[in-house]
Amino acid sequence: MQETLNYIHDNKQRFVDELFELLKIASISADPAYKDEVLKCADEVAKHLKNAGADNVEVCPTKGNPIVYGEKIIGENLPTVLVYGHYDVQPPDPLDLWKKPPFEPYIEKTEIHPDGAIFARGSADDKGQFFMHLKAFEAMMKTNTLPCNVKFIIEGEEEVGSVSLGEFVDENKQKLKCDCILISDTGLYSSEQPTVTTGLRGLSYMEVEVEGPSRDLHSGLYGGAVPNPIHVLSRMISKLIDEDGRITIDGFYDNVLQVSDDERKEMGKLKDDPDAFKKSIGLNGVEGEKGYTTLERTSIRPTLDCNGIWGGYTGEGAKTVIPSKAFAKISMRLVPYQTPDEITEKFTSYFKKIAPENVKVKVTPHHGGMPYVLPSDTKEFLAAKKAMESAFGKEVLPYRSGGSIPITAMFEEVLGAKSVLMGFGLDSDAIHSPNEHYGLFNFYKGIESIPLFFENYAKS
Amino acid sequence: MQETLNYIHDNKQRFVDELFELLKIASISADPAYKDEVLKCADEVAKHLKNAGADNVEVCPTKGNPIVYGEKIIGENLPTVLVYGHYDVQPPDPLDLWKKPPFEPYIEKTEIHPDGAIFARGSADDKGQFFMHLKAFEAMMKTNTLPCNVKFIIEGEEEVGSVSLGEFVDENKQKLKCDCILISDTGLYSSEQPTVTTGLRGLSYMEVEVEGPSRDLHSGLYGGAVPNPIHVLSRMISKLIDEDGRITIDGFYDNVLQVSDDERKEMGKLKDDPDAFKKSIGLNGVEGEKGYTTLERTSIRPTLDCNGIWGGYTGEGAKTVIPSKAFAKISMRLVPYQTPDEITEKFTSYFKKIAPENVKVKVTPHHGGMPYVLPSDTKEFLAAKKAMESAFGKEVLPYRSGGSIPITAMFEEVLGAKSVLMGFGLDSDAIHSPNEHYGLFNFYKGIESIPLFFENYAKS
Repeated sequence: MQETLNYIHDNKQRFVDELFELLKIASISADPAYKDEVLKCADEVAKHLKNAGADNVEVCPTKGNPIVYGEKIIGENLPTVLVYGHYDVQPPDPLDLWKKPPFEPYIEKTEIHPDGAIFARGSADDKGQFFMHLKAFEAMMKTNTLPCNVKFIIEGEEEVGSVSLGEFVDENKQKLKCDCILISDTGLYSSEQPTVTTGLRGLSYMEVEVEGPSRDLHSGLYGGAVPNPIHVLSRMISKLIDEDGRITIDGFYDNVLQVSDDERKEMGKLKDDPDAFKKSIGLNGVEGEKGYTTLERTSIRPTLDCNGIWGGYTGEGAKTVIPSKAFAKISMRLVPYQTPDEITEKFTSYFKKIAPENVKVKVTPHHGGMPYVLPSDTKEFLAAKKAMESAFGKEVLPYRSGGSIPITAMFEEVLGAKSVLMGFGLDSDAIHSPNEHYGLFNFYKGIESIPLFFENYAKS
Repeated sequence: MQETLNYIHDNKQRFVDELFELLKIASISADPAYKDEVLKCADEVAKHLKNAGADNVEVCPTKGNPIVYGEKIIGENLPTVLVYGHYDVQPPDPLDLWKKPPFEPYIEKTEIHPDGAIFARGSADDKGQFFMHLKAFEAMMKTNTLPCNVKFIIEGEEEVGSVSLGEFVDENKQKLKCDCILISDTGLYSSEQPTVTTGLRGLSYMEVEVEGPSRDLHSGLYGGAVPNPIHVLSRMISKLIDEDGRITIDGFYDNVLQVSDDERKEMGKLKDDPDAFKKSIGLNGVEGEKGYTTLERTSIRPTLDCNGIWGGYTGEGAKTVIPSKAFAKISMRLVPYQTPDEITEKFTSYFKKIAPENVKVKVTPHHGGMPYVLPSDTKEFLAAKKAMESAFGKEVLPYRSGGSIPITAMFEEVLGAKSVLMGFGLDSDAIHSPNEHYGLFNFYKGIESIPLFFENYAKS
C-alpha cells in the first residue's frame, strides 16, 4: 500500500492538471445545445480509463448520452467492485453570480479549504469525485497492487435523472456483475469529521402549469375581475406546507419510516453547529418541520421545495400584463419507504384538488428516484469506514445525507449488490450553484482512501 | 364636413398603407436595445405631421426618448386642442405566441372585426390610434375645414411611465397652452355600443425581491431546513388579497371614492354579458372583490395584480436548486382619491410587515400615475359624445375604463386643461399581448369622429 500512496503523492500535480482539462468541457446534460461537449467528455473519460490500464473500454451509445465502460479482471475468484460516476454536470446559470467563468477552472483558498479548492462547474459533482477513482486505479495498476476485479460505468445523464442507465444495466447484467458498487458522489459531514453515507433520500420532481385566461391580458382592463395564474399558483404553493412545516399532501407521510429515538440519539453525535450553519448560507434563522433538528430535517424526513417559478413579464422595466399561464418546478425528497410513483400520484391528485375551478392545472412528472439505506453492519460499510479512518487518521461515523442518487436502489434491484457511498465533498461546496468547488485536501484524501477500500474489501 | 368625410373615404387605403410602415418599426421603449428603432419612429411621425400641413414640427430631445411636436395655429381667438399620443410600444414577448412576427403587420378578419383587423404590436396601442389624428388633421387641412387651433405631442415613453413628459410639459407650458387635450389611447365598450371614457384608474407599480440563503443551495442537502424564497414570496403574495377579493394592505381603501348607488345604476346600463366576457378569454369562472360586478371591479374599484414572477431554475428539464432569491412585479390600479405615492408607501410597509424574519425583502417602485375622472357635464365630454354619435349613428354612453393614462392628471395640473379620452380600441384587441390588433372599422370611425369633435368643440 505504501508504494501506491507514494505513487499518488508523486503524481499529485499531474492529477489536478488532468482534472482541469476535464472541467473545461461544458458537458451540461439538461441543455441539448451542449450535446457535442457531452460527447467530447465521454471520449476523454474513455481515454483516461485506457491510459490507466483498463481493458475493453467502450463509449456505449444509449438513447440519450453515452455511458463509458471499462474493466480490469484479474481473477475469477476475486471480488468485483463496480465503480459508478457521472461526467455530466448541472447547468451553470445564473452565470452572473460566478466569480470566474464556470468552465475555466482555477484554484483558490477558502476558509473551509485552507489548502485551496478547485472552482468550476462539476468540480465536486461529479467530475472531481469520479476522477479520483480513475487516478486511484492508475496508481494501483502502475504499482501492481490492484487486489480485486474492477469495472467502471461513468454515465452522462445523472443530472437529468439517469434516463438511459436503467435500460443499459438491464441489458448488461452479466457484463456489470459485481459484488458491490462504489460511488463517490456525496459528501463528508466535514473535513474534520469524515463520514460514510449510509442513507440517501429519494426524489419526486414535477413541473406544474396553471392556466387562467386563454391569453395574456392587460392588467388595467381585466385586473381584479379574472383569476391571475400567478396569484393562483402562489396560493397553491403556499398550501403545500403548513405552519408547522408539515407537507399537507393527503397521505404524504403514510409510508415514512419513523426513525427510532435510539437511532436519532446516535445521529445526534454528529456535532451540529446551528450558528456556523446559518452563517455559511447567510441566514439569521432556519425553519422546517416542527420537532426535528436541521440535521434530521435534511436526512430522515421528507421535504418539498419549489425549485423554480416563472410567469408573466420578467424583463427590465414594467409591463402591466396578467399572464395566461404561470409555472413552477416542485420536487420532493423522499425517505424509506416512500416511492416516487406513490408520491407523484399523491402530489398530482392533491395539487388538482386544491386548484380553484376557474383555472386549468397540468402536472408533468420529471424523473424520480427511490430512497436508499446501507446498514452500518455490512462489510461494504465497514471496508469504507476502515479505509477512510486510515486515510484521515480519525474515527469515521455513519451519516445520512439529504441528497438523492436514485440509481442506488436500481443497482440493488437489478444487480443484487449494495452501493457504498464514499463521497468526499462538503455541503458548502456549492454544487448545483454558482462557484461550485472541491477541496484539494478532499480530492487527495479520496484518491488515498480508494486503494485502502479495495484492500479492505478484497480481504473481507 | 361632407367634403372632409369624402376626403377620408377616398384616401382610406393609403391611410392603412402608411400605418403599416409605422407598425414595421419596433419602437419598444422598455428595451434599450431598440433605441434606434425608437428614434426612427419619432422621425417618421415628424414627417407625417409636416406632410399633413403642421407648422413648427420638431423632434424634441429629452433625457429619454424624443417627443414629437407640431402645430397649426389659425386664429388667436379660436380654441386650441392639444392632441396627445405615443409612438412607443410594449415589448412583444412571448414571441412564440404570435401567429406572425409582431412587426410585420397584416390584415385578418375576426369574429369581432368582420371587416378585418390590423395585426401588429402597437396597432391599437397606440400607433393605430394616434395615427387617426394625423390623418384627420390631414383631411381637415386638405379640405380647408380646420375649425380651431391644434397642437400635437406624440411621446415615446408612455409604456415605461412617460418618464420625460412631465419635465417637458413643465418647461413648455406656453408652447403647449390649450383649452383641452384630446387622446385616443383607450377603448370603446364595444363596436356596437360606442362610449367616451370618463374615468381612468391610476397605477402604482413595484418590483419586489425576497432573499433567503445568500447563495443558491442544493435542495437535497438543504431542502426542508432553510427558508425557500419562492415559498416565502408565494405565501406573501397570497396574503395580499383575502378570500373576499379585498386587498389586505393596511389603509389601502382609506381614500377610495365610494361611487354612489345612483351612479352605479347609471353604469349598469352598459349591457354586461358575463358569458361572452368569459368566453372571450377562455374562462369558466371569473372572480374579484365581493359585492361588485365585473364592470365595476375593472373601473370603480382598485385592484392588485402580480404582473410577473421568477426565481430558481426555469429552463428545460429538472434542477434541484433552492434559489437565493425570488422576484415579482406587482402593480395596483388606483381610483380617486388614491395617489400612487400613498399606495407605494402603504404597499412597501405592508409587504415588509408580512415578511418572515429569516428573509430579506426589497421593494423598488417603478412608475405610478394618478387616477382621472372627466365629468359627463363638461363641454369636452359633450363635444366628443356628439361627434361619435354622428359617426356611429348611435347613442354614446359614458364609460369608466380600468386602464391608466397617468399623464391626464399631470396635464390637468400643469396645463389646467381637461383630457378627452376618445379611444376606439376594444378590450379584446389584445394590447400588451401577443397578436395585438385594431379593427379597420374602428380605425375609420376614429378618423371620421375627430373632425366632428373639432367642429363641435369649436362651436361650444
